[in-house]
Amino acid sequence: MAARLSRLEDAIDYHFTTPALLEQAVTHRSHNAKHNERLEFLGDSVLNFVVASLLYKQFDRIDEGDLSRIRANLVKQSTLAEIAQKLNLSDFLRLGEGELKSGGFRRPSILSDALEAVFGAVYLDGGFEAAAYVISRQYEPILLTVDPKTLGKDPKTLLQEMLQGRRLDLPVYLVVATHGAAHSQVFDVECRIDKLDIVVQASGNSRRAAEQAAALQAIERVEAIEPLKTSRSARRRH
Amino acid sequence: MAARLSRLEDAIDYHFTTPALLEQAVTHRSHNAKHNERLEFLGDSVLNFVVASLLYKQFDRIDEGDLSRIRANLVKQSTLAEIAQKLNLSDFLRLGEGELKSGGFRRPSILSDALEAVFGAVYLDGGFEAAAYVISRQYEPILLTVDPKTLGKDPKTLLQEMLQGRRLDLPVYLVVATHGAAHSQVFDVECRIDKLDIVVQASGNSRRAAEQAAALQAIERVEAIEPLKTSRSARRRH
Repeated sequence: MAARLSRLEDAIDYHFTTPALLEQAVTHRSHNAKHNERLEFLGDSVLNFVVASLLYKQFDRIDEGDLSRIRANLVKQSTLAEIAQKLNLSDFLRLGEGELKSGGFRRPSILSDALEAVFGAVYLDGGFEAAAYVISRQYEPILLTVDPKTLGKDPKTLLQEMLQGRRLDLPVYLVVATHGAAHSQVFDVECRIDKLDIVVQASGNSRRAAEQAAALQAIERVEAIEPLKTSRSARRRH
Repeated sequence: MAARLSRLEDAIDYHFTTPALLEQAVTHRSHNAKHNERLEFLGDSVLNFVVASLLYKQFDRIDEGDLSRIRANLVKQSTLAEIAQKLNLSDFLRLGEGELKSGGFRRPSILSDALEAVFGAVYLDGGFEAAAYVISRQYEPILLTVDPKTLGKDPKTLLQEMLQGRRLDLPVYLVVATHGAAHSQVFDVECRIDKLDIVVQASGNSRRAAEQAAALQAIERVEAIEPLKTSRSARRRH
């Protein structure tokens, strides 16, 4: 076991004084009583703080509402699960038999919880600076690609902002058809931007989902028509 | 201004290398553009983490759900506003005229936001250890009095747990009367614990509020009848 965990230490570039802490961090509650949930509580909060600090320093002119939105996106389950996959965290998880059989090592919630617990374990073992280093190292490549204007916004909001930036009217959404039985309805929604001659259509299991899917298509069309304006308005903002 | 803020530095026992950060921390958005909202974002997250760490270390056997509940109670607006009052933070606030006239310096939301911003400013000025020191110093007296079994639980939950600990039946709540018009109704609720011969009554603007008020009275009665058992079961838990 110790040999295996040293590969995880290499991956996060931190070596434990007390390796039992790392072992606990990768132990799911289905495995045994010394599981990772308390460490996850601690790791979640050090992660939130370190990411807040990184964002505060990187984006010195965006307001706290946008900082919160971006952070929420960076610490959400799916982002954490992606980081966990890059670290091959699933190779090190200790799960109970039931979870093993049902593929728990692939489940995003189990992966993201264990990753938070690893951050918490690093903090307990090496102090705040060690945890900040380990977390920053995983987030720096992600932060290079963050567009603070768009990250974490839903397509309808983004489309609306794009059109407002061009002084165009809001898009019009229309349910053009519904199919299926009451419990499994599918909505077909059309999104129209008349001034740009854009009409796109998308489907979803709710009206809202179909509208978001249609907005996403419309965004691609607007960007194809007027790419320059998009990047200019992004530059102006920061 | 500098002379005034040095009194705040004395109160938090931290002296700034860059006093402009502290000045920004006490500046409400109604005062001018260089206000404290970004610092509040940062301060909120360092506060959450430091309190999480203090709780993790102080309560080594309670689970993450209870840790979350206790932390939520310790970092909520009213707790922060109380700390701000002890520090006389309102003496240092920089508010716009409108807020000044309407007594904004007494408003819990403005006080708690400014306190979080002060924590954020200390972190930027002196690093994590400085912020952890300043925050811990305010929370250590509070943590001495925290009962992890009860803090942040509502009276109905507490009463139920007390009775379960004594192997007694659940209390019975009964609406005995309602008064007033539809939009301003008052509910009278009775709470009965037959085995202990307890019947108490309380009022509230909703059925739930009245039940909680009645539960609070019932708790006092149960504790008066059986004080020893309460403290024994509390001891057993930790």
